[in-house]
Amino acid sequence: MTSLIRFGISLEKGLLYKFDEQLKKRGYTNRSEAVRDLIRESLVKKEWQENKEVSGAITLVYNHHKRELVNQLMDIQHDYHNNILSTQHLHLDEDNCLEIIAIKGRAKQIKELYGKLSSPKGIKHTGFAEATTGNKLL
Amino acid sequence: MTSLIRFGISLEKGLLYKFDEQLKKRGYTNRSEAVRDLIRESLVKKEWQENKEVSGAITLVYNHHKRELVNQLMDIQHDYHNNILSTQHLHLDEDNCLEIIAIKGRAKQIKELYGKLSSPKGIKHTGFAEATTGNKLL
Amino acid sequence: MTSLIRFGISLEKGLLYKFDEQLKKRGYTNRSEAVRDLIRESLVKKEWQENKEVSGAITLVYNHHKRELVNQLMDIQHDYHNNILSTQHLHLDEDNCLEIIAIKGRAKQIKELYGKLSSPKGIKHTGFAEATTGNKLL
Amino acid sequence: MTSLIRFGISLEKGLLYKFDEQLKKRGYTNRSEAVRDLIRESLVKKEWQENKEVSGAITLVYNHHKRELVNQLMDIQHDYHNNILSTQHLHLDEDNCLEIIAIKGRAKQIKELYGKLSSPKGIKHTGFAEATTGNKLL
Repeated sequence: MTSLIRFGISLEKGLLYKFDEQLKKRGYTNRSEAVRDLIRESLVKKEWQENKEVSGAITLVYNHHKRELVNQLMDIQHDYHNNILSTQHLHLDEDNCLEIIAIKGRAKQIKELYGKLSSPKGIKHTGFAEATTGNKLL
Repeated sequence: MTSLIRFGISLEKGLLYKFDEQLKKRGYTNRSEAVRDLIRESLVKKEWQENKEVSGAITLVYNHHKRELVNQLMDIQHDYHNNILSTQHLHLDEDNCLEIIAIKGRAKQIKELYGKLSSPKGIKHTGFAEATTGNKLL
Repeated sequence: MTSLIRFGISLEKGLLYKFDEQLKKRGYTNRSEAVRDLIRESLVKKEWQENKEVSGAITLVYNHHKRELVNQLMDIQHDYHNNILSTQHLHLDEDNCLEIIAIKGRAKQIKELYGKLSSPKGIKHTGFAEATTGNKLL
Repeated sequence: MTSLIRFGISLEKGLLYKFDEQLKKRGYTNRSEAVRDLIRESLVKKEWQENKEVSGAITLVYNHHKRELVNQLMDIQHDYHNNILSTQHLHLDEDNCLEIIAIKGRAKQIKELYGKLSSPKGIKHTGFAEATTGNKLL
C-alpha cells in the first residue's frame, strides 16, 4: 500500500488555465494524477541522462529492396543482441518497412545503437521513444 | 533511378565543426548523407503537423498487477484497432511490462490515441516515436 | 448472452480415465470446458481444410549471416504483405534468429506462403501454428 | 566451411514420385535440399522429446471483453517470464485478439506453459509451433 501525501502548489492563473485545458483534451479527470505523470516523466528523463538501466523503442523506416541495407541493419542488431529484446517488422507496402526495436540496457549503449542504426544510407527515418524499466518508479 | 543534384551551403565555421563532430560519433562517412537525413527528418515532422497519414510507436510501462488498468488499456486499443498494426508486450520483470504499440493513421488520431493511453491511473510512463509511412520520401 | 445446452456422452471407462488424467495435468477443472475446447479445435481444423479466412503463426529459424537468404525471406514476405500482419524477429544468439510471422487470410494462400518460406537454402527450421480469426466461434 | 558428403538412397518408385510432386509444389529445386530439411526437422522433434533447450511460438485467440480471462493470461505469462521472449498482440476485430507468444526454454516447461494457457475458460483456440534454438543444427 502506498500512502499519499498532499501538498499545495502555487501557479500563475494563466498557466493553470492552459494546463487544465490540456488535461481535458487528454482525458485526465484530476490535476494530481497529471502532476504525478509529469514528475514520473522527469525521473525517467534523468534515468537516461545518468546512464541508468532503461528500456525503450527505436523505429526505422526503409525500403527493403536496398539489399545491402537490410544486411547492414541485421548485423548491427546482432552486434547489440544483448540490448535488443525483440524486433517487430511491419510491411507497410510493397516497398516500405516499419521496424520497431524493443531495447533494454544502459542509456549510453542504447544511444550508441541508435546512432549506428540511423546512419546507414537508405534509411528513410529513425525515431526514438525513451522509456523505463519501471522498477525505480511507483 | 534517382538523379542527384549538387548544391553548396554556407555555414559558420564553428557550427560546421560541431556538426562534423556529431557525424563522426554517429558513424556517418559524408556530410551529404547527414544533411539528407536532416531534410527527411523535417519532412516527417511536417507530415505530423499537417495531419498526414503517418506511422510510429507508442511505448507504455506499467505494473500488470493493476487489473483494472490492464482491461482499460485493452479497451482503448480495441477502440482504435484500425490505427494499431500490432502490439508487442515484454515482461520486464515480475511486475513491470513494456508494451510497444505499432501505429499507422492520421497524425491527429494517433495523438488522440496517445493521449488516451497516457492518462489512466497506474501507467508509469508513456513514450512516443514519430515515424512515417515512407511513401512520400525518397 | 449465450444459453448453455446440457447433453450426455457415453464413453469407454478406460478412455474417460485417460481423458481425466490429461485434464488434471493441463489444469482443467471440469470436463465440459475440455470437451468444448475439443469441439472448437475441430471447427478450426475445418476452417483450414475448407479454405476459410484464418489466422496463425509461421516460425523460421535461420543464420542471419547468410545474406542472400535474408533478402530472399524479405522479398517473399513483401510479396504476401496482404497476408502478413506483423513479423517478430528475435536474436537468439550471435548467429541464430527466430522469426515469428503473424498471418491472416485464406488458408490456401497461407499454406502457399508457408511452402515458399520453407524451401530456401539455409533455413534451419520452419514451424506452423494454425489459428482462427475467432469470429465464427463462440 | 561445411564439407558436403554425398550418399545414395533407395526408394520405392511410387514414393519418389509423390515426393517429387510435393517438392515442386513447395518450390524446392533439388532433392538433397528437401531431404536435408526432413533430417533437420526430425532432429528438432527429438530436441523436444528429450527436453532440450528449444524455442517456438504459442498462439491464442480470445475475446478481450472477458476481463477475468485477460488478467489470468497476463498472470500466467508473468509467472513464466523467463521463458517468454516477447508477446505480439493483434487486434483482429472489435472482439477478437490473436496473441503470439515467442518462447524459449526447456521443452517440458514450455509444454507446461502451453497447457496452462490452453485451459482458462473463454480461450477460443490455442496453437503451437515447435521450433529450435538453432545452435545444434547446421
